[in-house]
Amino acid sequence: MVLVMKAGCSQEQIDAAIAQIENWGHKAVPTQGEHQTIIGILGDKDDILDKPLLAIPGVAKKIEISSSHKLASRSFHPMDTVITIDNVKIGSGHKAYIAGPCSIDTEEIAIETAKRVKAAGANMFRGGAFKPRTSPYAFQGHGEDGLKILANVKKETGLPTVTELMSINQIDLVYKYVDVIQIGARNMQNFNLLKEIGKLGKPVILKNSIACVASEQLMSVEYLMSEGLKDIILCLRGVRSYEKVFRNSLDLALIPYLQQATHLPVIVDSSHAVGKRDFVMPLAFGGMAMGADGFILEVHPNPAIALSDGDQALLPDDFDMLMDSLKGLKVWDQKAYYKRGK
Amino acid sequence: MVLVMKAGCSQEQIDAAIAQIENWGHKAVPTQGEHQTIIGILGDKDDILDKPLLAIPGVAKKIEISSSHKLASRSFHPMDTVITIDNVKIGSGHKAYIAGPCSIDTEEIAIETAKRVKAAGANMFRGGAFKPRTSPYAFQGHGEDGLKILANVKKETGLPTVTELMSINQIDLVYKYVDVIQIGARNMQNFNLLKEIGKLGKPVILKNSIACVASEQLMSVEYLMSEGLKDIILCLRGVRSYEKVFRNSLDLALIPYLQQATHLPVIVDSSHAVGKRDFVMPLAFGGMAMGADGFILEVHPNPAIALSDGDQALLPDDFDMLMDSLKGLKVWDQKAYYKRGK
Amino acid sequence: MVLVMKAGCSQEQIDAAIAQIENWGHKAVPTQGEHQTIIGILGDKDDILDKPLLAIPGVAKKIEISSSHKLASRSFHPMDTVITIDNVKIGSGHKAYIAGPCSIDTEEIAIETAKRVKAAGANMFRGGAFKPRTSPYAFQGHGEDGLKILANVKKETGLPTVTELMSINQIDLVYKYVDVIQIGARNMQNFNLLKEIGKLGKPVILKNSIACVASEQLMSVEYLMSEGLKDIILCLRGVRSYEKVFRNSLDLALIPYLQQATHLPVIVDSSHAVGKRDFVMPLAFGGMAMGADGFILEVHPNPAIALSDGDQALLPDDFDMLMDSLKGLKVWDQKAYYKRGK
Amino acid sequence: MVLVMKAGCSQEQIDAAIAQIENWGHKAVPTQGEHQTIIGILGDKDDILDKPLLAIPGVAKKIEISSSHKLASRSFHPMDTVITIDNVKIGSGHKAYIAGPCSIDTEEIAIETAKRVKAAGANMFRGGAFKPRTSPYAFQGHGEDGLKILANVKKETGLPTVTELMSINQIDLVYKYVDVIQIGARNMQNFNLLKEIGKLGKPVILKNSIACVASEQLMSVEYLMSEGLKDIILCLRGVRSYEKVFRNSLDLALIPYLQQATHLPVIVDSSHAVGKRDFVMPLAFGGMAMGADGFILEVHPNPAIALSDGDQALLPDDFDMLMDSLKGLKVWDQKAYYKRGK
Repeated sequence: MVLVMKAGCSQEQIDAAIAQIENWGHKAVPTQGEHQTIIGILGDKDDILDKPLLAIPGVAKKIEISSSHKLASRSFHPMDTVITIDNVKIGSGHKAYIAGPCSIDTEEIAIETAKRVKAAGANMFRGGAFKPRTSPYAFQGHGEDGLKILANVKKETGLPTVTELMSINQIDLVYKYVDVIQIGARNMQNFNLLKEIGKLGKPVILKNSIACVASEQLMSVEYLMSEGLKDIILCLRGVRSYEKVFRNSLDLALIPYLQQATHLPVIVDSSHAVGKRDFVMPLAFGGMAMGADGFILEVHPNPAIALSDGDQALLPDDFDMLMDSLKGLKVWDQKAYYKRGK
Repeated sequence: MVLVMKAGCSQEQIDAAIAQIENWGHKAVPTQGEHQTIIGILGDKDDILDKPLLAIPGVAKKIEISSSHKLASRSFHPMDTVITIDNVKIGSGHKAYIAGPCSIDTEEIAIETAKRVKAAGANMFRGGAFKPRTSPYAFQGHGEDGLKILANVKKETGLPTVTELMSINQIDLVYKYVDVIQIGARNMQNFNLLKEIGKLGKPVILKNSIACVASEQLMSVEYLMSEGLKDIILCLRGVRSYEKVFRNSLDLALIPYLQQATHLPVIVDSSHAVGKRDFVMPLAFGGMAMGADGFILEVHPNPAIALSDGDQALLPDDFDMLMDSLKGLKVWDQKAYYKRGK
Repeated sequence: MVLVMKAGCSQEQIDAAIAQIENWGHKAVPTQGEHQTIIGILGDKDDILDKPLLAIPGVAKKIEISSSHKLASRSFHPMDTVITIDNVKIGSGHKAYIAGPCSIDTEEIAIETAKRVKAAGANMFRGGAFKPRTSPYAFQGHGEDGLKILANVKKETGLPTVTELMSINQIDLVYKYVDVIQIGARNMQNFNLLKEIGKLGKPVILKNSIACVASEQLMSVEYLMSEGLKDIILCLRGVRSYEKVFRNSLDLALIPYLQQATHLPVIVDSSHAVGKRDFVMPLAFGGMAMGADGFILEVHPNPAIALSDGDQALLPDDFDMLMDSLKGLKVWDQKAYYKRGK
Repeated sequence: MVLVMKAGCSQEQIDAAIAQIENWGHKAVPTQGEHQTIIGILGDKDDILDKPLLAIPGVAKKIEISSSHKLASRSFHPMDTVITIDNVKIGSGHKAYIAGPCSIDTEEIAIETAKRVKAAGANMFRGGAFKPRTSPYAFQGHGEDGLKILANVKKETGLPTVTELMSINQIDLVYKYVDVIQIGARNMQNFNLLKEIGKLGKPVILKNSIACVASEQLMSVEYLMSEGLKDIILCLRGVRSYEKVFRNSLDLALIPYLQQATHLPVIVDSSHAVGKRDFVMPLAFGGMAMGADGFILEVHPNPAIALSDGDQALLPDDFDMLMDSLKGLKVWDQKAYYKRGK
C-alpha cells in the first residue's frame, strides 16, 4: 500500500501519518517528491486494507500495490492446474466443450440434444434446473425433476453434467445428481455460498459477475480455494456496457490475462456474452483461437419451445459447424511469446 | 412486446412470425412502415418474454413495451406506502435518518455512537454483524456477538436497528435481534434469499446492485412483494462507473424517478456512493433537498480503529453538522410539479 | 510516478530499471516490500509520462501520483475565480442562471423566451446556432442567422448570450455575436479548437465529454489556460452509463469535488443529464442545493415546434416554478465543513 | 418510431397524440394492448427524430425502430466495399496489415521500422505527426517534419502511409504527404472535420470514439459518405470500461456485427485496446481469426526512447512472430453461416 500525501500538507501531518501507521504495526517508508510526499506501507496488506487511511489528515489518496489473491495466483502455483472430470481433462491444452440447453425442459429434448452435441465433439453437457431470473414471474426451472433428467442424460450418453446452483439450500440436491457446479454471474459474490461450495469436492465453473473486474473474480476464487477446493474453472461471460448491440461486452484479451495471473483453466460463455444466435459462434471461435481452455454454449434443437434464452440458443446444426471449424484451428501460443521474451 | 422485422424480410416471413406468435397464444398486430414492418404482440408479457422471438426468421429486434413490475408499481398502489417501525414512520414526508458504524466493533463504541447520532436527530441505528467482503482474508463481521450488541443498543437508546443479512442460514439469527433487514448490493439479485425474506414480516431496505438498472431493482422488489412483504425501502448507493474519483456513481435523479414509478420510500446511502468522508455529506444533503425519504450513513467516533470502511465514516461532529443543516431545508416538491401539469 | 515491480522479479531487473530511469534524468527511490519492490520516480512528471515504463523488464504496473493539472488547480490559485460578463458575476457565491432554447429557431420565439426567463430571474441567455448532431440528416442549426438572433435578443433584453462553437472555422463568426463560448461534450478533447479558443479573450463554458473522467476535463481546462484564458466555467452534463432511464448519468458529488480541486465555477446542465422534462428541475434544484455556481437549462415556449431536443425543454412556466423554488434555498456549505475540520 | 403511452393515459390523450403526429405530417397507427397503447409513426424518420415526442401528454417513452444510417448500410450496398491504396486492396478477403510507431520520432527509426514490418508482411505504414494528448504538457507530435518523414518512408519502402489528422487546418498539409487519413477516437464526432474530409478523395480509417456505441460510429460514416467519400475503413480500438486491467475494452463480436450491418472493411487496433505490449498480439490474432479485414498496430524498435505510447509498442521481433502466426490461420466464415441459414 502507498499513501499519497496532499500537495500542501505539513511535515507534522506526514510525521503523524507515519506514527499512526507504525501504531497499527506496519512499517512506513516516506519518499519526498517535488510536489508531494508518498509513504510506502510495509507489512500484511490484508490487515492494512481495512484501516481508515484516507481519514488520516493530509492524505490525498491510497494506492494498492499488491493484489490480495494468493491461492489463485500463478506465483503460488506455477504449473497449469488440470481438472479431471470422469475421463475429461481441462486445462494445459485439454479443452472443455460444454453444450446443452439453457433450461432443462423435457428428457427427450435433453437426451436428443446431448447425443447431437456429443456426436459433434462436446465432452460435457450443460442444462439448468434452477434458473436465476430477473423477474419472479418468469420460469424458474424444473428443480429436482431437471436434475434427474441431467442424471439420465449422463446415463444415456456418458457425458459429465454441469448445472447452476443458486443457493445453500440446493447444495445437497444438486451434488447428488451432477458432476460440475456452475456459479452464475449473480452469485459470484454470494460469499456464503462460495464458502460452503469451497468445502465440498466437486469442480466448480465460476462465471464473472455482471459488472466484474478481473481482480474480483480472482478474489471469489480465493473464497473457494481457502476452503480447500482446487478444481475451479474461470468462465468469462462478458460484463454490462452502454453498448446495447449485444447482451454484454466480452473482452477476449482477458483470456491470456487470466491465464497469466492464475494457474486455472479459463473458458468462454459466448452465448450470454452476445445474447443473439448469429454472433455466438464467431466469438466462441475467436476465444478458442486466442487459447481459451474451452467454452460453455447453449444449444437447443427447437429454440421456439425453449423455456428460457431461446434467442441465443444454437441449433445442433450450428454446433456441428462450430466444432467442425475448430478442427485444425491454429491457436495463439502466449507461452511461446513469454518464453521468447526471456 | 414489439417485434421489428428486418428491412428486407419477405411477406412469408412476416406471416410465419405472426403465425408463430398466435401459436403461442398471443395476438399479433402488424404495422407496415416504409422500410420495416413491426408486429405488436398482445397478451401476457411474462409469458412471451421467454419465447425465442429473435430466433424467428426475419426478426431484427424485439422491444419491451411494458415493465414487468406490478406490485411495486404506483399504478397498482397510487398512494405512498408509509412504513412504521416502532414509533418511526418512513415515506410520504416522514424521513428515515439512519446512522451508525459500518461494522459493529465493541458495545461501548456502538452505544456511544448511537447516543450521539440520536441526539443529533437520527431515528434508526445501523451496524454490520455479517459483512460481505471482496476478500476472504478481510474482516467478516462479529456475527451473533454483533447482533447482541445491536439489541443492547436498542435497549439503551430506543433506536430501532438495521443490519445486513447475507444468507438464508442467517435468517433466524438476524430476525431474533434486529428490526429492519438490509439486503446489500451483492444480494439484490440473490433471488432465493429474496423469496425467503419476502415470506417474513420485517421491513427490508433493498440496496441497488453494483451495476443495477432501475428496472432490475424494481423486479427484485417484486420477488419480495410477491411473497407477501409490503414494507420495503429502496436504497440508492450508486453504481459502478469508469470515473474513479468516487467509489461509485450515484445519479440523484433516480430519487424522483423511483418515487414516481413506485409507491415505496426511496433513501440514499451516500457513504458507499462516494467512499470518501469529505463528500458524504454534500451528497446526502442534495438527496434530501431533492425529496429523498431519508438516508443511511456510516458514522464512527474513531474511524482510525473502525474494522471496515473507516475511510468513508463520518465523525459524530460531522453528523451533527449534517443534521443541523437539514433544519429548515427547502425540499423540491415534485408532486406539486405533477399536479400543476394537469 | 511509482513503479511496482513484479513479485518474482530479480535484483538485476530492479537495478536495471533504476538505471534506466536515471538515464532519463529522473531520480529513482526504491522501497522493498515483503512481496514486491516499488520504485518512486522523482522529477518532472510530464516528461516521465511518455516514457515506456511498462516496457521495462520486471515492471508490473505504474501508478500516477500527482495530477498534471497546474493552472486549473486550487493549489496554484487558492481563491475562487470570479468571472464577470457585462454586469453578471459567476463564482464565489455569484450564480449563473442560464436558460434558453436548445436551437435558435425564430427571432420571435427567442425574444419571447428570453423575456420570460429574464423575468423569472435568468441572468444569461443560451441558444444554439451550430448544432453537433449524431446524424448528418438531422437539423444542423441556423448558423449566422441564429447568431444574429442571439445578438438581437441581447439588444432587446440586455441578457448576455451563450452559444456553442464547434469548429475553428466558426470562431470569427461566433466571437462577433455572442458573449460566452460553449464547448460541448463532443469537443471537450478537440485540442486544436481548445488551443485556438484559449488565445482569445471570451469566457468559456467547458462541458464534460460523453464518457469523461474528472481529470480529463481538468486537463482540457489546462489547454485553455496554458494559452492564456482565465475565464472558464466547468459544466457537468452527465456521462454515458448502462442505465437507460436517463440520457446520461450525472453524479452531483462532482460539484464539491471539482470546487475543491479547482478555483473555477462549476455549473450543472441537468437538461442534457436527464433528457426528459420531468426530471430536469429536481436535478437542477439538487445541484444548486449542493452549492453549484449555477445552471444552464433548455427552455422553450412551444417544445412541439422546437427544432431539437424538445423532449427535455422546460416550459417557461416550469422555469418560473424552478426559479421560485430557489428563493430561500439553503445551500450546503462545504467551505464551512473544511474550515471546521482544521 | 413507436410511441408507448402511459398505462393510465386517457383516450383523449391518445387522440391528441395522434392528431399532433399527423399535424407534423406523419401517419400514426395505434395498437391497443392490455395495459398500454402503442402508436406506430410512419414517414421520414429523420424528420420525426427532432420532434418533442416525450413532451406530448400521456407519452411514456419513444422507441427508435429503424436506424438512420443509409449509405453505410449493407441494404444500400449489398456487396463488400473493396478499397484500393496503390497496389494494396482492403476488404472482401483482402487484409490490411498496418504497422509503425505511435509517433514519428526520427527518420532513421521510421525507415528502420518500416523495413522490418514490411519484411514481416505489413502492407501499410502508420506514424503520428499530430498527436491528440490529454495533457497540453505532453509531446504533441513533430507536425510537418513528421509528415515529411512519412513521405520518405514511402519513397524508401513503397509502403502506403497512414497518419492521424486532428483539425480542419491540418488538412492541406496532411493530404500533401500521406495516403490514408486516420480519424482518431476523440474526433469521431468532430462533425465539421468529417464533413470537410468527406469532400476529399483520400481513404479514411475511422476509429470508434472513447465511449462509442456501434450506431454512432455508423452515423459518423454517414457524415463522410453523404459528402461523397466511399473509401472508409472502420477501426475498432475498444471503449472505456470500469475494468482497468486494460486501457480499453474491445468486444471482438463487433467485427461480424459491423461486417453484417455495413459493406465497409472493419479492422482492429489492439494496441490502443489493451495498452500493454503483452496482450496486443493475442487480441490482434483473435480478431483476425474472427474475420477482421486487418489491423493497425504500433511497432517501435526501441520503445524506451519512443515519444509516446511506448508501453504498448510491439518490438519488430514481436511483429515477426505475429505475422508468422497468421500464416495458415483458419478464419471464421460468417458468410458461410448466413448462407447455410437460408
